[in-house]
Amino acid sequence: MATLSDIALAAAINILSAFIFFVAFAILRLQPFNDRVYFPKWYLKGLRTDPVHGGTLMRKFVNLDWKSYVRFLNWMPAAIRMPELELIDHAGLDSVVYLRIYLIGLKIFVPIAFLAWAVLVPVNWTSDGLANSKLKNLTSSDIDRISISNVQSGSQRFWAHIVIAYAFTFLTCFVLLKEYEKVAAMRLHFLASEKRRADQFTVLVRNIPPDPDESVGELVEHFFLVNHPDTYLTHQVVYNANTLAKLVKKKKKLQNWLVYYQNKLERTSQRPEIKTGFLGLCGAKVDAIDHHNAEIDRLSKEIALERDKVTNDPKSTMPAAFVSFKSRWGAAVCAQTQQTRNPTSWLTDWAPEPRDVYWSNLAIPYVSLTIRRLIMAVAFFFLTFFFMIPIAFVQTLASLDGIRKSAPWLEPIISVPFIKSFIQGFLPGIALKLFLIFLPTILMIMAKFEGFGSISSLERRAAARYYIFNFVNIFLGNLLTGTAFQQLDTFLHQSANEYPITIGTAIPLKASFFISYIMVDGWAGIAAEVLMLKPLIIYHLKNFFLVKTEKDREEAMDAGSIGFNTGEPRIQLYFLLGLVYAPVTPTVLPFIIVFFGLAYVVFRHQIINVYNQEYESGAAFWPDVHVRIVIALIISQIVLMGLLTTKKAAQSTPFLIALPILTIWFHRYCKGRFESAFVKYPLQEAMMKDTLERATEPNLNLKAYLQNAYVHRVFKASLDEDDDEDGDSQKWETESVPVPTKRQSRRGTPVPSKISVSGASSPSLPERQSRRSTPVPSKISVSGASSPSLPDSSFRSPPEP
Amino acid sequence: MATLSDIALAAAINILSAFIFFVAFAILRLQPFNDRVYFPKWYLKGLRTDPVHGGTLMRKFVNLDWKSYVRFLNWMPAAIRMPELELIDHAGLDSVVYLRIYLIGLKIFVPIAFLAWAVLVPVNWTSDGLANSKLKNLTSSDIDRISISNVQSGSQRFWAHIVIAYAFTFLTCFVLLKEYEKVAAMRLHFLASEKRRADQFTVLVRNIPPDPDESVGELVEHFFLVNHPDTYLTHQVVYNANTLAKLVKKKKKLQNWLVYYQNKLERTSQRPEIKTGFLGLCGAKVDAIDHHNAEIDRLSKEIALERDKVTNDPKSTMPAAFVSFKSRWGAAVCAQTQQTRNPTSWLTDWAPEPRDVYWSNLAIPYVSLTIRRLIMAVAFFFLTFFFMIPIAFVQTLASLDGIRKSAPWLEPIISVPFIKSFIQGFLPGIALKLFLIFLPTILMIMAKFEGFGSISSLERRAAARYYIFNFVNIFLGNLLTGTAFQQLDTFLHQSANEYPITIGTAIPLKASFFISYIMVDGWAGIAAEVLMLKPLIIYHLKNFFLVKTEKDREEAMDAGSIGFNTGEPRIQLYFLLGLVYAPVTPTVLPFIIVFFGLAYVVFRHQIINVYNQEYESGAAFWPDVHVRIVIALIISQIVLMGLLTTKKAAQSTPFLIALPILTIWFHRYCKGRFESAFVKYPLQEAMMKDTLERATEPNLNLKAYLQNAYVHRVFKASLDEDDDEDGDSQKWETESVPVPTKRQSRRGTPVPSKISVSGASSPSLPERQSRRSTPVPSKISVSGASSPSLPDSSFRSPPEP
Repeated sequence: MATLSDIALAAAINILSAFIFFVAFAILRLQPFNDRVYFPKWYLKGLRTDPVHGGTLMRKFVNLDWKSYVRFLNWMPAAIRMPELELIDHAGLDSVVYLRIYLIGLKIFVPIAFLAWAVLVPVNWTSDGLANSKLKNLTSSDIDRISISNVQSGSQRFWAHIVIAYAFTFLTCFVLLKEYEKVAAMRLHFLASEKRRADQFTVLVRNIPPDPDESVGELVEHFFLVNHPDTYLTHQVVYNANTLAKLVKKKKKLQNWLVYYQNKLERTSQRPEIKTGFLGLCGAKVDAIDHHNAEIDRLSKEIALERDKVTNDPKSTMPAAFVSFKSRWGAAVCAQTQQTRNPTSWLTDWAPEPRDVYWSNLAIPYVSLTIRRLIMAVAFFFLTFFFMIPIAFVQTLASLDGIRKSAPWLEPIISVPFIKSFIQGFLPGIALKLFLIFLPTILMIMAKFEGFGSISSLERRAAARYYIFNFVNIFLGNLLTGTAFQQLDTFLHQSANEYPITIGTAIPLKASFFISYIMVDGWAGIAAEVLMLKPLIIYHLKNFFLVKTEKDREEAMDAGSIGFNTGEPRIQLYFLLGLVYAPVTPTVLPFIIVFFGLAYVVFRHQIINVYNQEYESGAAFWPDVHVRIVIALIISQIVLMGLLTTKKAAQSTPFLIALPILTIWFHRYCKGRFESAFVKYPLQEAMMKDTLERATEPNLNLKAYLQNAYVHRVFKASLDEDDDEDGDSQKWETESVPVPTKRQSRRGTPVPSKISVSGASSPSLPERQSRRSTPVPSKISVSGASSPSLPDSSFRSPPEP
Repeated sequence: MATLSDIALAAAINILSAFIFFVAFAILRLQPFNDRVYFPKWYLKGLRTDPVHGGTLMRKFVNLDWKSYVRFLNWMPAAIRMPELELIDHAGLDSVVYLRIYLIGLKIFVPIAFLAWAVLVPVNWTSDGLANSKLKNLTSSDIDRISISNVQSGSQRFWAHIVIAYAFTFLTCFVLLKEYEKVAAMRLHFLASEKRRADQFTVLVRNIPPDPDESVGELVEHFFLVNHPDTYLTHQVVYNANTLAKLVKKKKKLQNWLVYYQNKLERTSQRPEIKTGFLGLCGAKVDAIDHHNAEIDRLSKEIALERDKVTNDPKSTMPAAFVSFKSRWGAAVCAQTQQTRNPTSWLTDWAPEPRDVYWSNLAIPYVSLTIRRLIMAVAFFFLTFFFMIPIAFVQTLASLDGIRKSAPWLEPIISVPFIKSFIQGFLPGIALKLFLIFLPTILMIMAKFEGFGSISSLERRAAARYYIFNFVNIFLGNLLTGTAFQQLDTFLHQSANEYPITIGTAIPLKASFFISYIMVDGWAGIAAEVLMLKPLIIYHLKNFFLVKTEKDREEAMDAGSIGFNTGEPRIQLYFLLGLVYAPVTPTVLPFIIVFFGLAYVVFRHQIINVYNQEYESGAAFWPDVHVRIVIALIISQIVLMGLLTTKKAAQSTPFLIALPILTIWFHRYCKGRFESAFVKYPLQEAMMKDTLERATEPNLNLKAYLQNAYVHRVFKASLDEDDDEDGDSQKWETESVPVPTKRQSRRGTPVPSKISVSGASSPSLPERQSRRSTPVPSKISVSGASSPSLPDSSFRSPPEP
């Protein structure tokens, strides 16, 4: 057991490292040449420009204003100051609701900590269980003296812990209930106040049964004309456009090179030459610009051919379609009802946002889906409980003996002392570390294999699995000894009522371990997050070696996103630790509160300035967050029950059994009361928006608006690029919604983002400014994201004759 | 362990008693005075009349035709002969699908029995495990020699059992899959081919939020006019009509007496007189007919007053309404979608059939519902595991010592030898027996308290609970020793992997017990079912003492119904026993097959001739049946795993673990594939029916048809009776659907039910006849059932001026 001074030392080290990270961040973020690393979101929104213009060359790279260094923690209040409504406009509802998870942590654990320190600490401290048991050769520390370990077995003082457990449960449930209510209201308000978006009118139809006489497109049209005669508007068949995607990507790369060589020509007035062979190292020399022009022309023709093939060949049509309706009401009706007798064909569901669609999964048939789920369930079980086996195998191979055995001819090399110590000290650990780094990716691949149709649902699935993995391998794995598989074996050989006892006994013993875990992962780790070391290094490397054009520089920015699939399970671990330790070892609570507070500020800053959310699901993940906190609560109740049993306070067990039952009931109540807000779209809302829209814009050409909303991203990029000549871009102008922010064309406009430049001077954007950055209609922002040249060309250059 | 001869003796006894029941049934059913007991369904359908007309007085009561006694089992082939389609017309889909459960039993267990006897019995028989273990003082019988007990521990022969377990699983799943497919198709076909019914157009709206300015009716109208503008037709508010119901019942009783006295007057030409005091024993003498007429007039006025009060007083309006739409499509849309932001208000769901509505539960608010569910869940847990405690308490009280203690003044009475032996031998057992008899009623009351809105869902809920109770207290309770609570305690103190071992070891030991259970409950019990002893006695008692008028005689008939809430769990027990014993003790299988065969014939006969289903849910219970058989399959696999572990065949466990996983996956597949057919109503189907109807009946007045479909049963009865004068009955005649069968007016028509009169002469009704007995529009049959005078008066007498 660690003593208070041990903990204090560890805390000092971690606070120091967090402090160093913050100082480094404060210095780095003020340097203009890092601007695109620390404020990419503002660049992506077109509200910030390179600080290159004006000033000396020196000032271009280094900030020499010493005053700005003094207030190096100023970004923190700045991050907090932006009001929530404005933040929703700025970063979307997903990000704001994600931040609320940290807030919930504070709302739950601050009162819990006060209660625990006011009631439990005195009760524990004045007991003398440990003093008595010292006779039995047990050492104890100050931490143990204020934990439940200090209460004597069979003492009446445990009633305090039971009453407090009730208080904690009611408090947590109250906060959760209020929060669910609030988030559901926010979601509904967000959906209601949204501008017209394609996904409000559109339903994704999957598993369209094959028909010998009709193409998928005709089939869809006939089906919906018959079954939704009053509301059906149009549809968009899903094509298998993987080849096309490759070609378009290739062409884009070539165009990029062309710009680079044209720039070079302008600068040097010398026509650049390249070799056509392997990697430009061998082969005949040709004029670079001519060569690229020729290549691009060739590719354009190829793309046109491929596009024709995809649209005309029935084989590349997938049995799925996006069906759009004349009204939101029509779409809401279609999405929530069953279409035909066979519940596995003509499956309708809300279309995800266009940028949220995960295209390649749209055509998986029903039977295949169920089989994939089964396979992945089994695979995940083995991954969770047996992942140590292959790693142990790799570790054996990577040991000295292993290498000697499998590759005796390496003997001379591994005898070198440096390599020897490297292998001994580094290789075994690296296998495990690599696995843990790649685990979220593995889980994402598993989710993709399972066939979810949108990126948001993929992330939610991966998050659920990551949570279970963390629970088994971090929480249980550190509480109990042995690998997960050994634990599983132990559990199988134990009686069911011994589980809580096993875990309950281990809980107080491991308090100091988890405190240091919280400090390393939660304090220093979060502080490191704000420094963004990896994107910083990669950006500068790219900038130095790869960036050829202005567009390249833009693409070198790696804004990243919240990463729900890794971030949320990580928070949940803190909820679990906090709730489990609250009635047992209240010492843990302050550390958790610091984590939640720090993480809230850091992530709020990151969301304002850095992260660029790829999609907007309208906080669809909240039911998952809620249920996981409820699970943590139930686990904490069961563990306390087990612990009190070992403490011979068995007469109190009936009082504790009521707690999980009440909590499960609470969960069911919340589920029934709020969950549908995240799953369904009420007809009343739809009708209200429809009526309003009809009144305000009676002449709206909805069909034109929806026609190409759900074209495959790459397919549309190629369409837009090539079809500018056909006057196709005119249709954009018929729209009444705000036009997309034109990233490059806005460069140098007199709208510098006041908040992000100094964070100190003016805390928030003027109302008008932030309104301008409301979520642009997603369709356009997608096309704007994938091919940034589109909005420019379509708005600046008139259609060619 | 019972020997083969023991079993043979028990079988002989049970076969004999079954035989006696059948003979008794054959004799009793041929007696004309029992006709209404054994063929009530035909009376209720109006296809059979009292065999009173013609013949001597003797023949009126006793059947003297000796030939009809010879072929006393002839009802069996007759019961089987009616084709399934005709049976659906005759008795509804619920009954037919219920019969299919027995058929599934045959389909699963006949091939399983063949396989088991062909493979397992030789394998077990030729082993010598028991011969070896006899040295260890174990006795064994022939049954044990062909069970798995005879295979030596650690033998390689267990592979046969494992392979067979796979075969059983695949066979069962195959049958289940085919059956689910078939039943889903039957349900959809049934719904599609149904005549126009009110519930196809109607949605039940619950939890309408209170509005200070509008009444519920206005609120509903406005809400649906706004949110379903194209399809909304009309609505019917639900009233709290309990007082009215009482008054109407009282009036009906008085009218009945009036008819009795009028008959008496006709017969005796003497005006009957009664006393007005208590029970007609004291008070002033008055003329009975005048008195009753006056009373009926008074009540009619009271009813009119009360009706005005109910319809006009907003307090007696419940926040629920039946909303009808112009098309099935509109109703399907409304039933499957969410209406408002708040998922606990404006809850829409398919309206149950009018006769299926459970009125008093329609107004329970959401929060109350969730609390009720919680309370009932806890209550059911205690009921299942601790029901022995109050019974044991009653048994102590009812023992001699208990009575002596609590009521010493009874001492002289209980010293009488006869009373003493009665108390000792009978009272303790009667408490348990009474509890078990009332258990289904208790479970139904619990389901009602939970607030389900239709009788069919109440029965399904009660069935689920009864199944769990049976599983714990009959299956586990007889396998293991001690009460359910003691078992629970044992299980809690056992490790999780010992559960299957505990049960697995007990399974082969209890084979002979369950064989005799099957014979007593399954063979003799089913044979007793056909005899209908209780309804027979009650009918004759009523006939003798109470029946005053022809209508009374009709009401004295107790047709009963299948009783899904008790019948289905009982069948499931046999599935469980069969699947668990199939790989262990194949001897059990033939007994189960006999049960399923016998029960199929008996219940088919009962459904054709006796039961009168109260509602038609369209086989909505099938998903429950399916999932319970799957659970039985999984339990059998786990038990086999435990058994093989004790047999030291542990290396085979991994092969068995795959089975439950595959089975669970199979269940999920089936759920996704078929369940929605039982929950939702596809729009395509609705649209097809709408289109067809619009083409064939363009001038249909749907509003008139739907207007009073969902009036409270009693409220409607009073409406109809009193409003005949207002010409209200004319609307019935606008309907194109077949008019209700007029029970009394059809008396003596030339359509005797050929099938039921002799069961031997002509097996089935001519096609045309049975078509005429298609499900009549439910609304009318309800009113026809509650107040039989309505159809007569409305069809025979022209509306009074």
